[in-house]
Amino acid sequence: MNCLLLPASAIEGSRAHMSDSAQISHIRQVLKANIGDTLKIGMLGGKLGTGVIETMSERAVQLSDVMLTHAPPPKLDVTVVLALPRPKVLRRLIMDMSALGVRDIVLVNSYRTEKSYWQSPQLARIDEFVLEGLQQGVDTILPRIQMHKRFKPFVEDVLPTLLKRQGIVAHPKTEASFASFMQEAAGSAQALPDVLCIGAEGGWIDYEIDLFAAHQCQALHLGARILRTEAAVNALLGQWLLHPQASEKCF
Amino acid sequence: MNCLLLPASAIEGSRAHMSDSAQISHIRQVLKANIGDTLKIGMLGGKLGTGVIETMSERAVQLSDVMLTHAPPPKLDVTVVLALPRPKVLRRLIMDMSALGVRDIVLVNSYRTEKSYWQSPQLARIDEFVLEGLQQGVDTILPRIQMHKRFKPFVEDVLPTLLKRQGIVAHPKTEASFASFMQEAAGSAQALPDVLCIGAEGGWIDYEIDLFAAHQCQALHLGARILRTEAAVNALLGQWLLHPQASEKCF
Repeated sequence: MNCLLLPASAIEGSRAHMSDSAQISHIRQVLKANIGDTLKIGMLGGKLGTGVIETMSERAVQLSDVMLTHAPPPKLDVTVVLALPRPKVLRRLIMDMSALGVRDIVLVNSYRTEKSYWQSPQLARIDEFVLEGLQQGVDTILPRIQMHKRFKPFVEDVLPTLLKRQGIVAHPKTEASFASFMQEAAGSAQALPDVLCIGAEGGWIDYEIDLFAAHQCQALHLGARILRTEAAVNALLGQWLLHPQASEKCF
Repeated sequence: MNCLLLPASAIEGSRAHMSDSAQISHIRQVLKANIGDTLKIGMLGGKLGTGVIETMSERAVQLSDVMLTHAPPPKLDVTVVLALPRPKVLRRLIMDMSALGVRDIVLVNSYRTEKSYWQSPQLARIDEFVLEGLQQGVDTILPRIQMHKRFKPFVEDVLPTLLKRQGIVAHPKTEASFASFMQEAAGSAQALPDVLCIGAEGGWIDYEIDLFAAHQCQALHLGARILRTEAAVNALLGQWLLHPQASEKCF
């Protein structure tokens, strides 16, 4: 946790009350903080700043001198459409996308998503994974998250409402490469794509690729190498995070 | 496993013998392959191709019609210098760097690397993690791996032998940004840096940053967000993997 996020209701003027057990144990065991120490905090949906530990027990920490002065970093101007992954990797994927500042996350069904994934208890923990990611990435603004259990209605009816410029789909079995696409885009001073679709293990099937293509999402390969979903998501989002125009294009 | 890698000694003409238990169980339980099915294989240090299952037991698979026809993808022209991470994340980091095609990996001590990390039994399993990564990324060429338990002698004596052009150090607490650095490099048609240094949790200390700077490695931040080491490694290496010049610069 590179900052500790509190709900607005926990902050009153220059004082704040913390009772989240994960945060308390982080303060005591990882930071090994004492009374009088300053913590980096943020208000969920609000600003970042600091607070000073006034009292501390195993169950609660009371802060004084709370000052929330910094705006959180801009979000990346991108919607990630992710085929619902294995529950085991869901936590890290949601954490990383939240830490990187993805603005919209859509979890969607795909042909290669196993049906059992939609029954996973991990799905009920997404808010927790988002909070972990924001506290890692030092951000206060929750990404918007949608889940769609039916692929075709999502692509036909919802995707067009999310896509303003251009979508791309990571897909090993295609001719066009992400690298050339980005080079052309840079040459014509075109903005980065605003929708990025990433498949489950085994990728998208032809039907899905065709439906995406009919809705302004072009399939692009990342080279000959096949990456784990997590590695692919981070390698691709790095293009938004580290793009020279990224901060201008964000809001 | 997107391909199954065999040592040269397991291949004789058009026949090959597999006895690695992880590979056998992958063939039987994940691929659910039968006699007569074709597998994607590769020779460690050699070419990629296919083989047909001739016989199969719980302990061994015999292949016929082995054809090794494709060269593996080019390596990324980059050395990653990584402060030895927590053992828990070492496996995924080594896997991902191998899958992405990093040519040289250096695990080095840093002020914030806990001493106990060097005693971890995970360190003896690095070859296994590399193999997992290559079988994920469909590559046959092992990255070169070095470990250096002393930071200063490494930077002063070894780093200069690895660095031909320019090194960069990921460091949140600095003025210069990775994005502007890359934009300038692109403007002047300069090649990508060939050394990338990434810290442990908590990053590098000033002494380390100064020593790197004295050896042609410039500190750059990745923006306001702080990423997990794994996410940072993948987001950064994505710049090499997805760079338009990347394939020309590789060997």
